[in-house]
Amino acid sequence: MHVKFNNMRITIIGSGNVATHLAAAFKNAGHRIVQVYSRNMQNAALLAYHVGAEAINTHQNISPDTDLFILAIKDDAITSFVPYLSLYNKLIAHTSGAVNIQELLNATLNAGVFYPLQTFSRTKEVNFREVPMCIEGADEAITKFLEALARDISNNVYRVNSAQRKVLHLAAVFACNFTNHLYAISGQLLSGSGMGFDMLRPLIAETADKIKEHLPGNVQTGPAVRNDEQTMNTHLQMLQQQPRLQQIYTLLSQDIIKNHNKPNEDK
Amino acid sequence: MHVKFNNMRITIIGSGNVATHLAAAFKNAGHRIVQVYSRNMQNAALLAYHVGAEAINTHQNISPDTDLFILAIKDDAITSFVPYLSLYNKLIAHTSGAVNIQELLNATLNAGVFYPLQTFSRTKEVNFREVPMCIEGADEAITKFLEALARDISNNVYRVNSAQRKVLHLAAVFACNFTNHLYAISGQLLSGSGMGFDMLRPLIAETADKIKEHLPGNVQTGPAVRNDEQTMNTHLQMLQQQPRLQQIYTLLSQDIIKNHNKPNEDK
Repeated sequence: MHVKFNNMRITIIGSGNVATHLAAAFKNAGHRIVQVYSRNMQNAALLAYHVGAEAINTHQNISPDTDLFILAIKDDAITSFVPYLSLYNKLIAHTSGAVNIQELLNATLNAGVFYPLQTFSRTKEVNFREVPMCIEGADEAITKFLEALARDISNNVYRVNSAQRKVLHLAAVFACNFTNHLYAISGQLLSGSGMGFDMLRPLIAETADKIKEHLPGNVQTGPAVRNDEQTMNTHLQMLQQQPRLQQIYTLLSQDIIKNHNKPNEDK
Repeated sequence: MHVKFNNMRITIIGSGNVATHLAAAFKNAGHRIVQVYSRNMQNAALLAYHVGAEAINTHQNISPDTDLFILAIKDDAITSFVPYLSLYNKLIAHTSGAVNIQELLNATLNAGVFYPLQTFSRTKEVNFREVPMCIEGADEAITKFLEALARDISNNVYRVNSAQRKVLHLAAVFACNFTNHLYAISGQLLSGSGMGFDMLRPLIAETADKIKEHLPGNVQTGPAVRNDEQTMNTHLQMLQQQPRLQQIYTLLSQDIIKNHNKPNEDK
């Protein structure tokens, strides 16, 4: 059952990519952003302007007239910020993949987590309805409340406890951050030979596209899964001036071989 | 200038993913596949049926009535197969990223390379018009001929010599094969905590989507580029039962830090 909240009052603490995309999604879903806080007044003002909120840059100016504080600041700033909010006894939810709900519970029982499992860039729109929203609450009522709010902005809402969220965050580093770095490495290799990154874009798009309907283990290709030692040795020789890339090549190839452990097969 | 060839006669040697997708693309562009060769008659027959060709499984049955032999077999089988074709003095082009044109030139001057830089799966359609076609010819006339043929099936045709193609192939291992394996690792991490791969699919799609309009170095996110040592240490602890993943995590993080070398920044 989907409880629709109209015109919830939401305060956004932070003005980075997560704060920006969440604030816009809430606003588009019909909620009201009352204030945007950032230490940097210019950043606060920019986001506040976009979502029709008041910009503030001191915690003394935080208004208690809100239903929910969304904490979208750096992980290591969360714990020290909570006391400025918990005195109002309103619900506080952080948006971090890595921070245990306990960090909020030390200051207030009115606590939850509202973690969007996505990579956000300032300049790129994201279809929030497809973003997996990972919800945790200090109690069942808070969990249900945050789940309903999450369904206002996304079709993919999951209950995820702090231990699971930590694993999700780690998995996201492999699936997103490390993947993006492999794209960067491939571009560097090309540029050294007078070729442009454009040549790789269709391959990158197709590699990700395959995963929409398959599991990655079922569509693995390349010399490692074929156990093609000659090609792997040639590649390692080509990388001999870049020992770190050589190590990355070796480790990832070994892990593919270990996971698949197949003899040679047709191209 | 685009020279359009009508009804070229093409013989496909091989019946794997590259052979299958290339044969279909040629056929769709109005060319005629005369024969499909595979050691395995069933595989030859299946592809031959789809493209209206004759299936053969012995080199004695190869017909000289063709304009072009496309060699789409395993890299290490190319050299030994060429003599069965070169006696007819027709153009022979291989489709490998890793094999030097010299391997063909040792047997015939009528040689070229027709390398599609893409990952092909048997069960997934690919829009061939977006596949980068990397062309090399033994002389300018052959190069021009293969370029024109490539333009019949793709909008992205490049001249790529054997040294460059070797680098492209290596770059593709990072951008495609290793990337897919990172997807697999992330799925493994989740399944150990009772979560499904579906949760990661939007993140994977968005990570690749960003790259359509940005260079990867400009959109890197995650703990390594932020130099967030606390999160990286937590992740390494979580991986302590999986030393190879720990090593992959460390190496990729170090390479990101080295490439970016930034102090802490806002989320």
